Amino acid sequence: MKKLINRPEDLVEESLAGLALAQPDLLRVVAPGVVVRIDAPRRGKVGLVSGGGSGHEPLHAGFVGPGMLDAACPGAVFTSPVPDQILAATRAVDGGAGVLHIVKNYTGDVMNFEMAAELAAADGIEVRAVTVADDVAVQDSLYTAGRRGVGGTLLVEKIAGAAAEAGADLAEVERLARRVCDGARSMGVALSGCTVPAVGRPTFELADDEMEIGIGIHGEPGRARVPLAPAAEVVRQLAEPILADLPFRAGDGVLAFVNGMGGTPLIELHVVFGALHRLLAGRGITVERSLVGPYVTSLEMAGCSITLLRLDDELRRLWDAPVRTAALRWGR
Amino acid sequence: MKKLINRPEDLVEESLAGLALAQPDLLRVVAPGVVVRIDAPRRGKVGLVSGGGSGHEPLHAGFVGPGMLDAACPGAVFTSPVPDQILAATRAVDGGAGVLHIVKNYTGDVMNFEMAAELAAADGIEVRAVTVADDVAVQDSLYTAGRRGVGGTLLVEKIAGAAAEAGADLAEVERLARRVCDGARSMGVALSGCTVPAVGRPTFELADDEMEIGIGIHGEPGRARVPLAPAAEVVRQLAEPILADLPFRAGDGVLAFVNGMGGTPLIELHVVFGALHRLLAGRGITVERSLVGPYVTSLEMAGCSITLLRLDDELRRLWDAPVRTAALRWGR
Repeated sequence: MKKLINRPEDLVEESLAGLALAQPDLLRVVAPGVVVRIDAPRRGKVGLVSGGGSGHEPLHAGFVGPGMLDAACPGAVFTSPVPDQILAATRAVDGGAGVLHIVKNYTGDVMNFEMAAELAAADGIEVRAVTVADDVAVQDSLYTAGRRGVGGTLLVEKIAGAAAEAGADLAEVERLARRVCDGARSMGVALSGCTVPAVGRPTFELADDEMEIGIGIHGEPGRARVPLAPAAEVVRQLAEPILADLPFRAGDGVLAFVNGMGGTPLIELHVVFGALHRLLAGRGITVERSLVGPYVTSLEMAGCSITLLRLDDELRRLWDAPVRTAALRWGR
Repeated sequence: MKKLINRPEDLVEESLAGLALAQPDLLRVVAPGVVVRIDAPRRGKVGLVSGGGSGHEPLHAGFVGPGMLDAACPGAVFTSPVPDQILAATRAVDGGAGVLHIVKNYTGDVMNFEMAAELAAADGIEVRAVTVADDVAVQDSLYTAGRRGVGGTLLVEKIAGAAAEAGADLAEVERLARRVCDGARSMGVALSGCTVPAVGRPTFELADDEMEIGIGIHGEPGRARVPLAPAAEVVRQLAEPILADLPFRAGDGVLAFVNGMGGTPLIELHVVFGALHRLLAGRGITVERSLVGPYVTSLEMAGCSITLLRLDDELRRLWDAPVRTAALRWGR
């Protein structure tokens, strides 16, 4: 295992401490695994909390800031945060207008967020939760009942975050988060595994001529192990199940998100985006907004995922709203 | 070789086409390997052109936009752009106020930018050039007479770009670019090699317990192949030569840039940044600004580099100025 770390057991806290030192005007760590906006709680604003296992950076702590999350609670690598941690984040961002939990659909995450929500309710904090389950690759998986939550999570955080920043109430923020969940679909591919530091060996191995289509963000098995193919063919294998699922139709305008899994360089992600753009144009689907980069990663895994979100005026306006976080900044 | 590409010979153009499709309001490709701001040329504004081999994305094309570069001319992977390409970029961004070339100190780059500058001068375009040579690792290298240009290049592009955007004339933009060159020092480490697509095998191999200190961004040999060490020790091995070189002194305020080489996850880069912050604090040096992420990469190489720039009011103000590019966006 070759990593730029000190002791594996200190990795998450050391990394969060480094993040806070790099973003002193944006966020702070108020307890182990609890990252909050520097100005939290904001009186009268709905608080947005997300979290999940570490190893997917910049998700979620990289999206804490004005226009997006109020808090993130990262667990150990590929491990759910504990209820006390989620509760601490919820309390830290409660400004009296309630708190929305944005939860990726993994059994441990869902359970721990539910427990934290009950504890918060006992404190008098109104909590709602949305569960993101955008991955069309598999129905149930190693860690889920139902579909996994992957790249769509970022889109939920951005759009719900914009609504909360603009002063929407809890029901309205929840409604918008659900609209994104309803309209977003994703699928990923891995060209390599990744190594959890505390384990020290790759989660799985792929032969030199193989890729895994439909991979999960923890290296869970996907749909099929197939021969490595040119980028245009990989895009077809990812995009067709996504398009068929919602389904997306000719005339739709979409946000197209090409996400790097960590180890795949940006030069390749733009090749993938170009191929996706062509494929969509061929189906009469217009890319109205886009995002290309490593945002929902699996440590150093090579590969990518595609997320499509069907847009309309309401979602487009919220996507375009200003945001300032470590990982996502709008210049307008 | 496992990459998300089509034919290796089409990689750069396909990737640039994808970038342009993803950033339609920001940039366009006007000729093969010539990426320019969507609104170029801007009448009366000094034009900024940079370029070099591809494989270092988002450098340089990811930094084209308001407040930074007017054009980028990426060559083939790890290969200098040709003079005609640099000339086309120079012509495309000349708004009558002259053009600054920002050149990383590699023999081929320097020669080809000089040739392009002569051709542009024959067209009546005033061109100045600054050569970035911030890497303290080695004096001469496989591809350079003198020091290599690495992470400091991004800082030159940002600060000179802010000055040009604010209306500074060519001499003033050149002066500021040289100030950054004078005050920035860098050094990198590799934990793995990377594979140039047209070659198909890694540039070099490291044993499981080895790292290469002082690596170049094309995998050129560094100072020493040494045993893999904890992050805090790696930071010491990179930072001490940097600090001794300028030298940086107690009381200095710096911009600290922890750059990922491509294959190293963000969770590790923040561990490195935290260790660097502590080391600097111990020397009485204050981190006033920071940047953490994969910005000057070597394809999928694992590793990182550290760049320090000594700040003062003038440089800090230009660093803080608004910018809007694919890779670097300010929210303020």
